[in-house]
Amino acid sequence: MSRHRTCTRLSDGRELIYFDDTEPYASGAAVRECHDGRQLPAVRTASSMRLDPLTGEWVTIAAHRMDRTHLPAADSCPLCPTRSGRPTEIPADDYDVVVFENRFPSFAEDVTPVPAVVDGTALWPQAPAAGRCEMVCFTSDHDCSFATLDARRARTVIEAWADRTAALSGLDSVAQVFCFENRGEEIGVTLRHPHGQIYGYPFVTPRTTQLLARAAVHPGGDLLGDVLDAERRAGSRVVIDGEHWIAFVPAAARWPVEVHLVPHRAVPDLAALHDAERDELAVCYLDLLRRVEAFFADEGDTSPVPYIAAWQQAPVGDGRELVRLHLQLFSLRRAPGKLKYLAGSESAAGAWINDEVPERIAARLRDAR
Amino acid sequence: MSRHRTCTRLSDGRELIYFDDTEPYASGAAVRECHDGRQLPAVRTASSMRLDPLTGEWVTIAAHRMDRTHLPAADSCPLCPTRSGRPTEIPADDYDVVVFENRFPSFAEDVTPVPAVVDGTALWPQAPAAGRCEMVCFTSDHDCSFATLDARRARTVIEAWADRTAALSGLDSVAQVFCFENRGEEIGVTLRHPHGQIYGYPFVTPRTTQLLARAAVHPGGDLLGDVLDAERRAGSRVVIDGEHWIAFVPAAARWPVEVHLVPHRAVPDLAALHDAERDELAVCYLDLLRRVEAFFADEGDTSPVPYIAAWQQAPVGDGRELVRLHLQLFSLRRAPGKLKYLAGSESAAGAWINDEVPERIAARLRDAR
Repeated sequence: MSRHRTCTRLSDGRELIYFDDTEPYASGAAVRECHDGRQLPAVRTASSMRLDPLTGEWVTIAAHRMDRTHLPAADSCPLCPTRSGRPTEIPADDYDVVVFENRFPSFAEDVTPVPAVVDGTALWPQAPAAGRCEMVCFTSDHDCSFATLDARRARTVIEAWADRTAALSGLDSVAQVFCFENRGEEIGVTLRHPHGQIYGYPFVTPRTTQLLARAAVHPGGDLLGDVLDAERRAGSRVVIDGEHWIAFVPAAARWPVEVHLVPHRAVPDLAALHDAERDELAVCYLDLLRRVEAFFADEGDTSPVPYIAAWQQAPVGDGRELVRLHLQLFSLRRAPGKLKYLAGSESAAGAWINDEVPERIAARLRDAR
Repeated sequence: MSRHRTCTRLSDGRELIYFDDTEPYASGAAVRECHDGRQLPAVRTASSMRLDPLTGEWVTIAAHRMDRTHLPAADSCPLCPTRSGRPTEIPADDYDVVVFENRFPSFAEDVTPVPAVVDGTALWPQAPAAGRCEMVCFTSDHDCSFATLDARRARTVIEAWADRTAALSGLDSVAQVFCFENRGEEIGVTLRHPHGQIYGYPFVTPRTTQLLARAAVHPGGDLLGDVLDAERRAGSRVVIDGEHWIAFVPAAARWPVEVHLVPHRAVPDLAALHDAERDELAVCYLDLLRRVEAFFADEGDTSPVPYIAAWQQAPVGDGRELVRLHLQLFSLRRAPGKLKYLAGSESAAGAWINDEVPERIAARLRDAR
């Protein structure tokens, strides 16, 4: 199957890339005729980050995001194609998969400078939130979801993720690339059109920093490889066991529904996957999403399951050899109509309490179809 | 003012303690006549915890909590006094402040043993979730909130927190005591009656573990003292400056509304506060809660503001000298009708993005009354 990749720019200078997988590769071909006619003003992002002295973590302050688009009606969706003269973020009358720079980014390459510390105090280091935030539209069909895509389209999304992981990893400001999908209004999704996001962070994320610290003291150094082997041996939490990929509920799952999808081969990120791995990933990922979608069906709840799908990738620089690519997929629905909230214990003390047993989550995911 | 402290037990053996501040000290006096007539079966908690090898943090698995009481109607509230023959958790026809062991605890002293590792694999250490979980009812009035209590009652709650911090710190299983209030259905509160909770964790919480690591390498060792001094010097984020207490928005605030309340004197926990500090705390804490309650009033939203009030206290054992008592009070409301959700960046990568500027949060809290 042939795929076409076509780059263009929106009227305010933001980059947009079409990934076409279907004849006549309409959106790429349209670049010659269709231009973004909106004459948007160029955005300069006033986003900064401050180091929290109590945790050692960067906190990003992105005040300009307060005014971003919030759950627009379907006929004013900015992620739909431009049709009948109504301009959207995508200046083509159809597309397969498209990636473009976020108009309200938390991290951007052209970001306003700030002093090196807050209030002249060395306790509070500060920096511009340099980096990059991109949107990924999985389909031009406003009303579907990732789980309902076919494998060909899922494979195109994987191609886009891999492409963007490689591209963002090459930016001077980016220390780690994070591809993810937030799905469901229950977790604050502000646009219903099926889409994900890609963040190029200017720092190694707190979760990966923890993992690096653990991996550095782990005997042999291959912590994630040893976890993978142990899950395969135990078997009680394995959900899918493929030729190149394995999915299991982690032994210390934090969420009422949580599953990790990991390649057998040690690779640092999506860009390092070879073709056969990408092909099987398209199938396994759809299988896993559909199991999550069906998780509460036996309790009579077939409403869309809110989830977060997070691709944990190795940092671009130091520690790269210590982190293997893995998908962390979880939902905070704990029962029909009930969410797992992060309240005092989780949000303030960082101590997770899961009302579900990991082995039971795995059994339910194995049964869900 | 005199306060009476009276201990009793519920029918299933759980401890209950009345803190009476008002003549005729009704609930304490009632202990002689009123017994819990419910004949509840004794609970044995099947709660365990597993060490997450990727983060080094304990995750608690409390499957029995799935069936806990969820938003009962006011006339079947288990935290109201026992009246008109309808038995509740509190076998007295009125009370001022009462503390009792949670019927659905995440941590308990009498907890079912488990093997030392999951699946016989050293990668996954496991332990019974030993510890203690208590409920604190702030008032017998079902329909009010902490912010509407008078200073006398708030002072009694402080007395109860201090009492329980000392008592739980004395238990062999407890490594850290955490007093907190989750307020608002938006953050998953399952009982509307004004109440808080106290957790005696069997481990030092992840947040405090991070703080200990930072404090241990901080020049001079008094990280929290230096932050306090720097906030006082900067002034731009100070909200309340009292004789014994100061409230400020932290320079790297993570939440759209976040404020810390800290005593000027270095104390490890609430039990170590002297009387004058407790007296002023009652006033300052109410003042702060009322400012949070009024935060969105100028935008026309006077509905109850969901918040988490979390007392960060020193661990019972190692590192005790490195942590000062401080209250972390925050809300995830970011605008009228809008919540700050923890989505992919926060929940999966641990990277917080705040749409509000800390100095602006402080200015709004100073103005809010």
